[in-house]
Amino acid sequence: MQVELVSVGTELLLGQIVDTNAAFLATKLSELGINVYHKTTVGDNAERLAAALRISLGRSDVVFATGGLGPTEDDITAAAVAQVMEVDLVQDEAASEKIRSFARSRGIKLLDSLLKQAWVPDGAEVVPNPIGTAPGWILCRGSKTVIALPGVPTEMKAMAEQAVLPYLAEQASKEGPAVIVSRVLRLAGMGESQAEAEISDLIQRQANPTIAPLAKTHEVFLRLTARAPDRAAAEELIEPVEAEIRRRLADHVYGADDETLEMVVGDMLRKAGLTLAAAESCTGGLVGHRLTDIPGSSDYFLASLTAYSNQSKVKLLGVPEEIIQQYGAVSAECARAMAEGVRRAVGADIGLSVTGIAGPGGGTPAKPVGLVYVGRADASGSAAEELRLRGDRLMVKERAAQMALYLLYRSLRVRQTAEVAR
Amino acid sequence: MQVELVSVGTELLLGQIVDTNAAFLATKLSELGINVYHKTTVGDNAERLAAALRISLGRSDVVFATGGLGPTEDDITAAAVAQVMEVDLVQDEAASEKIRSFARSRGIKLLDSLLKQAWVPDGAEVVPNPIGTAPGWILCRGSKTVIALPGVPTEMKAMAEQAVLPYLAEQASKEGPAVIVSRVLRLAGMGESQAEAEISDLIQRQANPTIAPLAKTHEVFLRLTARAPDRAAAEELIEPVEAEIRRRLADHVYGADDETLEMVVGDMLRKAGLTLAAAESCTGGLVGHRLTDIPGSSDYFLASLTAYSNQSKVKLLGVPEEIIQQYGAVSAECARAMAEGVRRAVGADIGLSVTGIAGPGGGTPAKPVGLVYVGRADASGSAAEELRLRGDRLMVKERAAQMALYLLYRSLRVRQTAEVAR
Repeated sequence: MQVELVSVGTELLLGQIVDTNAAFLATKLSELGINVYHKTTVGDNAERLAAALRISLGRSDVVFATGGLGPTEDDITAAAVAQVMEVDLVQDEAASEKIRSFARSRGIKLLDSLLKQAWVPDGAEVVPNPIGTAPGWILCRGSKTVIALPGVPTEMKAMAEQAVLPYLAEQASKEGPAVIVSRVLRLAGMGESQAEAEISDLIQRQANPTIAPLAKTHEVFLRLTARAPDRAAAEELIEPVEAEIRRRLADHVYGADDETLEMVVGDMLRKAGLTLAAAESCTGGLVGHRLTDIPGSSDYFLASLTAYSNQSKVKLLGVPEEIIQQYGAVSAECARAMAEGVRRAVGADIGLSVTGIAGPGGGTPAKPVGLVYVGRADASGSAAEELRLRGDRLMVKERAAQMALYLLYRSLRVRQTAEVAR
Repeated sequence: MQVELVSVGTELLLGQIVDTNAAFLATKLSELGINVYHKTTVGDNAERLAAALRISLGRSDVVFATGGLGPTEDDITAAAVAQVMEVDLVQDEAASEKIRSFARSRGIKLLDSLLKQAWVPDGAEVVPNPIGTAPGWILCRGSKTVIALPGVPTEMKAMAEQAVLPYLAEQASKEGPAVIVSRVLRLAGMGESQAEAEISDLIQRQANPTIAPLAKTHEVFLRLTARAPDRAAAEELIEPVEAEIRRRLADHVYGADDETLEMVVGDMLRKAGLTLAAAESCTGGLVGHRLTDIPGSSDYFLASLTAYSNQSKVKLLGVPEEIIQQYGAVSAECARAMAEGVRRAVGADIGLSVTGIAGPGGGTPAKPVGLVYVGRADASGSAAEELRLRGDRLMVKERAAQMALYLLYRSLRVRQTAEVAR
């Protein structure tokens, strides 16, 4: 069964609102194993909506429309569907009564426009609206089905979950039992093409699960999607492929699904009973901001010092002036001294540091924009890494913060491994 | 001229990401007075993309596609467009060279997949990518135009603003003199309904310009949109309405259009020759992160100390232990001591502070989640303000950071006014 989404509303075409309805339905339908190959947005124009519905019905079994069911003149979905499916509009008694009682209870005048919402295509099964006044409906004619729900996200979601998704699940199950299960592997310290090169043979022969790389600003996702009769069977298909990817990409795979890097390092710090302090220059506080996005991060994250000027690096972090004079503030030596300094100043087990040139100004041929050093210090010593990051100022900041957290992640992994070995 | 948007990517159909690109382009195009009547999303499938492009080209002059230009095998936009427009794909020399130098500078292997991105439809005008490796392009054949940009939002936006939107604006202007000019007034320290109540009579009788309030996480925008034969005439329509809104909302209007609060306070600090240091607790570094998003912020922003634990507030900021014992770390007294402390520790003209309970844990009946104090200190003394913020952890952090910057903004405004009066 193939379902197609049609979002109705000029405000979507003007960019005034983002179409979260379509994203919600797409997620839910893919979880049911229902294919969605097209998604169309049209404005509140009867002619264009009818034309779009004809195209959609020509290539899909089910057209799922949201929006355009309200009381105003530019709510034209019911009329356009009736026209395309060649049925009349009829007044639904239950929906009319609900609108009347709504008007009574609010003490508002029962306008014709309010009652207009109760007119539905003849033969349609009405989907009650538990929140608002506009009902939705499901209209089947021959092999084609049109579903229409209001565009208000809370109403649409409630009606989809209570009535429409169960209906579609039942229809889909008649075609054979299938669910789709997805697993996202989250990668750091590795670009999209590099990751793809490492697993190109797996991607080449992908079928079930499929493997899709997706580049974010500062990380890469690999999405494994399997289709099977039930969840357990789908997970069984994913498992060996995930294991092989993890084996090849090793510590570049830092987490799965919704686990962020700050969540993962937070867990590791908490389990190891270690405290952390950060010294930031070019990231300006972003490392601390990300670490403190995690509830309970005060258990392990003590403080972050954003020492933006050279003077504050000396004054707050105790970076020796000679280091700045000899190597510059953007250097491996300074990154190490910052990590050591913040560890000492705050009294933390681990010090983490970032210093670099975020741009657009401040670059030189020897030290270009995007040159960043991340550093780390603990009781046993300190280390730093040089990075060449690309992008605008904000992207360099985001990538630098990610690489600092990734450095911390790897050092905590080494510690874990050493403890297991002991 | 009619432009149609086509978003390419299976991840959009699976609901894994929300299509912010389309919303961005729809906004920009409507600002240019360009009609967008359709928006289509298709997956990474060459056949379905080609079919969708044919439908779009049948009803619109310009098809603007985003996504599917990357290095991987499921990036199929260029091939599909070439097929539909009946041209060959050719290798663009400049784009290839850029990819080669990217691979060299990173020391990574020059994979064929990387170079694949440099293949563009024959006759297309290449749009350089200032951030990543995949170029975009504009292909005109007869009366039809296809524009393609990469799907990564930062890259897409930069390329749209630098090249594609100016191109479309020029094309649109050939068709006749009707422009839409928008002006966004940015508000802080005031909610949407409060702002609306202050100007409800203006909103009631709006026509040209229209006035649309838009609530963001931590601020409110008022968008004034005028339609006129040319830009000057449209601006003339906006001017008196903007003046009246500014008069009523006074210092709640901190900026216009793309001016962020960190940009505005940065400018004010620079002009006044003042330096700033921040002491953050619940915002975890977000104030510093925002301030350092502005190029050249090192001229006035010296340092930020994120003192997350009580101990670090004492140790790093010199907050007297008695204050924490007597009033608690989340108190007006502590906020003032933090602002004074960071000013002293860093040697800055102004100290700014935030302390509060971001949640979800840590709240009590007396000090609930969302209770936040922002503080400010300079040579003449210190002050703090109590806030009750709503939302989840991240929203409280964002709103607290905004209110800290807004406190700084107001104090700098007072200083400006005093200097003008002198």
